[in-house]
Amino acid sequence: MENVTKEKVDDVLHAKWIIPVVPDNTVLENHSLIIKNGKIHDILPTEEARHRYEGERHHAIENHHVLIPGLVNMHCHAAMTLLRGFADDVSLEDWLSQYIWPAEGRWIGEEYIEDGTKLAVAEMLRCGVTCYNDMYFFPHVSARVTSDYGMRSAIGIPVIAFPSNWANDADDYIEKGLRELHDKYKDHPLVTVVMAPHSTYTMHDAGLLKAKKIADELGMRIHIHLHETAREVSDHQQNNEGMRPIERLQKLGLIDDKLIAAHMCHVTDDEIKLWAEKGAHVVHCPESNLKLASGICPVQKFSKAGVNVSLGTDGAASNDDLDLLGEMRTAALVDKLQAKDATAMPGWQMLKLATINGAKALGLEHKIGSLEKGKEADVVAIKLRTEPVYNPITNLVYVGTNSVTDVWVAGKQLVKDEKMIGMNEDVLLRKAQQWGEKIKTSRPPANPAHEVSA
Amino acid sequence: MENVTKEKVDDVLHAKWIIPVVPDNTVLENHSLIIKNGKIHDILPTEEARHRYEGERHHAIENHHVLIPGLVNMHCHAAMTLLRGFADDVSLEDWLSQYIWPAEGRWIGEEYIEDGTKLAVAEMLRCGVTCYNDMYFFPHVSARVTSDYGMRSAIGIPVIAFPSNWANDADDYIEKGLRELHDKYKDHPLVTVVMAPHSTYTMHDAGLLKAKKIADELGMRIHIHLHETAREVSDHQQNNEGMRPIERLQKLGLIDDKLIAAHMCHVTDDEIKLWAEKGAHVVHCPESNLKLASGICPVQKFSKAGVNVSLGTDGAASNDDLDLLGEMRTAALVDKLQAKDATAMPGWQMLKLATINGAKALGLEHKIGSLEKGKEADVVAIKLRTEPVYNPITNLVYVGTNSVTDVWVAGKQLVKDEKMIGMNEDVLLRKAQQWGEKIKTSRPPANPAHEVSA
Repeated sequence: MENVTKEKVDDVLHAKWIIPVVPDNTVLENHSLIIKNGKIHDILPTEEARHRYEGERHHAIENHHVLIPGLVNMHCHAAMTLLRGFADDVSLEDWLSQYIWPAEGRWIGEEYIEDGTKLAVAEMLRCGVTCYNDMYFFPHVSARVTSDYGMRSAIGIPVIAFPSNWANDADDYIEKGLRELHDKYKDHPLVTVVMAPHSTYTMHDAGLLKAKKIADELGMRIHIHLHETAREVSDHQQNNEGMRPIERLQKLGLIDDKLIAAHMCHVTDDEIKLWAEKGAHVVHCPESNLKLASGICPVQKFSKAGVNVSLGTDGAASNDDLDLLGEMRTAALVDKLQAKDATAMPGWQMLKLATINGAKALGLEHKIGSLEKGKEADVVAIKLRTEPVYNPITNLVYVGTNSVTDVWVAGKQLVKDEKMIGMNEDVLLRKAQQWGEKIKTSRPPANPAHEVSA
Repeated sequence: MENVTKEKVDDVLHAKWIIPVVPDNTVLENHSLIIKNGKIHDILPTEEARHRYEGERHHAIENHHVLIPGLVNMHCHAAMTLLRGFADDVSLEDWLSQYIWPAEGRWIGEEYIEDGTKLAVAEMLRCGVTCYNDMYFFPHVSARVTSDYGMRSAIGIPVIAFPSNWANDADDYIEKGLRELHDKYKDHPLVTVVMAPHSTYTMHDAGLLKAKKIADELGMRIHIHLHETAREVSDHQQNNEGMRPIERLQKLGLIDDKLIAAHMCHVTDDEIKLWAEKGAHVVHCPESNLKLASGICPVQKFSKAGVNVSLGTDGAASNDDLDLLGEMRTAALVDKLQAKDATAMPGWQMLKLATINGAKALGLEHKIGSLEKGKEADVVAIKLRTEPVYNPITNLVYVGTNSVTDVWVAGKQLVKDEKMIGMNEDVLLRKAQQWGEKIKTSRPPANPAHEVSA
């Protein structure tokens, strides 16, 4: 063919393997992905791509690389990176009330959120996450930091019945969230605004109803912590005449296809059925649930019932990383044990939880979550560091030593050769270290700290 | 002080943090580790080290690095790297009988073991493992390849009642193992020879008794698969008048402080008590057990009973990696859930499982497993890629994004700046790829393979 017939495009990615996620369980060998105007313009055999397209930039990632859609981290508190490792080996209840809430009360402010979110943005992108669903204070700061760098996010308006450094009561949280977050970002190409009432144990009925009413009016999803520990459920029953948190949400009309419930470790078969009937979504956060010994979400049961299950890391204070690739591995392994079935949760299905299922929960499945023509070019290149490769999905999901080398969001390259583009990570780490030095002075004496001999 | 007063040593490692493992839960800040004649000559504050020692080589690993003792992978089939990802998402019984055994029967020979073991040696060292306890065919080849490179190993004489490409029956395995492995390596500084009867379901009483008799005469440990799946136990009961595998081993006199039992997922409280009374050892292999849905070893119960529990990856065909650092993370998380207690298995305790406890099981605790004066210099430097660091043990054990940068075994540096010294990893990977191309042609049609569109 003649050179003159070639179509001009922005980026041409030649890859040894492309795992598009849609259709199911598919691997394309020696294919190329073409990016034009921030979108996936084409996916075709490399041989053909060389004849048809002339890219402004060419990326040869043919050597042991897979291309996958950007991962979607569906439950996060990004700025909690600054509390990573602040308290270990304690239960969720103690962890929150003895360590996390006091530390947050003492330190959180705009600068904290900015530094913590930047650290999280770098960590997530370097682990292949291109979009995260956040719930934290000063959400406009998180939205600004993340979108300024070019990463995609769903940022929640946090709502809690009690005061924090950001707002005073449920009304104030909602009002501030609408003014500072929703109104500024509702049409932003990279930011989706979500309503995020914290949980049933930190919210009154009035606040939950108001959050839902406004979310519906403005077309927002609802993101909430739900049925994380057995104690959360039993305490709720004790305080509400035997009513389980899900029962209460059902009574208040919150359970529908706009609801994204994180954790869901302690649920009955009827509750799973309810979730399927209502089309509500679940976020599985295995590493955080394991570390806090909260329990584990019955992913197999939810999936078999037809519920859309996605995957989240939770914050780095309970995880202790934001590596959704590692979370997939943990989830795939733990789900097999929980289901007592080695055939449960094969690798390709786990990859759906971490990509297209998250996109569906956010209502963004037309834009992201798979590598398909016309979707946004949120693309991740991962070097498989091991051989043989009988099936690249296996090496991707089950092997713990791979490296994310390159990441694009909406066609813009944000990570190249394992380095952030235009962001000095050493500066970020130094700032985080300084925050750590300050914050650790406020750790209560009861903390199970290590001995340090200096 | 005067320069002339400095003692000449081989290597001086200045580290931001040293985690010596012994004593418990200790972090030394701004200390240096001194290597002389392959041994740990001293550990002291860096300031002091600068005055007292003149190293032939200096290594500044002060920036976000921890130094830990080399990890001890207590259950491995190293050359099975070549079967990594060969069959996924099937039960242990099907995995063995339908996939692994037929493939091994077709392909295993000296060249296979050599290439597979080299691949495993590189992978383990790059993940901080300095010693592994192996059980596989052609063990003299594994011993040669590993010790030639300078890595430490415990190599088992595999014994099975049925024929393989290496030997014909239990007598033949033992006889070959003594001649080709034991006699050549019994005094080798890096190789410990172990007797490795495969399991109760692949061994007759006569073979077990003979293996034990010879092991005792020659001072060898016994390494065996035991109580891995519920079906293994129930099948054994069906075939042996209700007797559980442990009961049979007890009757045959195999349970004592020389016994290293891998898996132990399905055990009664009495069996745990027996293990404690006899001083027998356990190897916890959580990722393999999870992936094959075999069950999970009750580590908390064993530990509380006083049993020495160590950690293993199992082979890469069921794991799918040999990353004991990642295995620690999985184990720490899963053990908390299993114990329903977030305080169970704190990070520092998990690090003991992966180091000193393995050394104890092998009877090598006087030589390896901790960073103490006089021990062999098996040392690993790991870059903690995250901040803040409230406790480096937390960031080491719970964060999934750290990197092993440098590794020494018996004072010889084998990994430097994340690269193997004197080993071309690309050549290894190419060979593994070629093996994969050959081996995949023998995969049975029933395999749950992915669709490939080329």
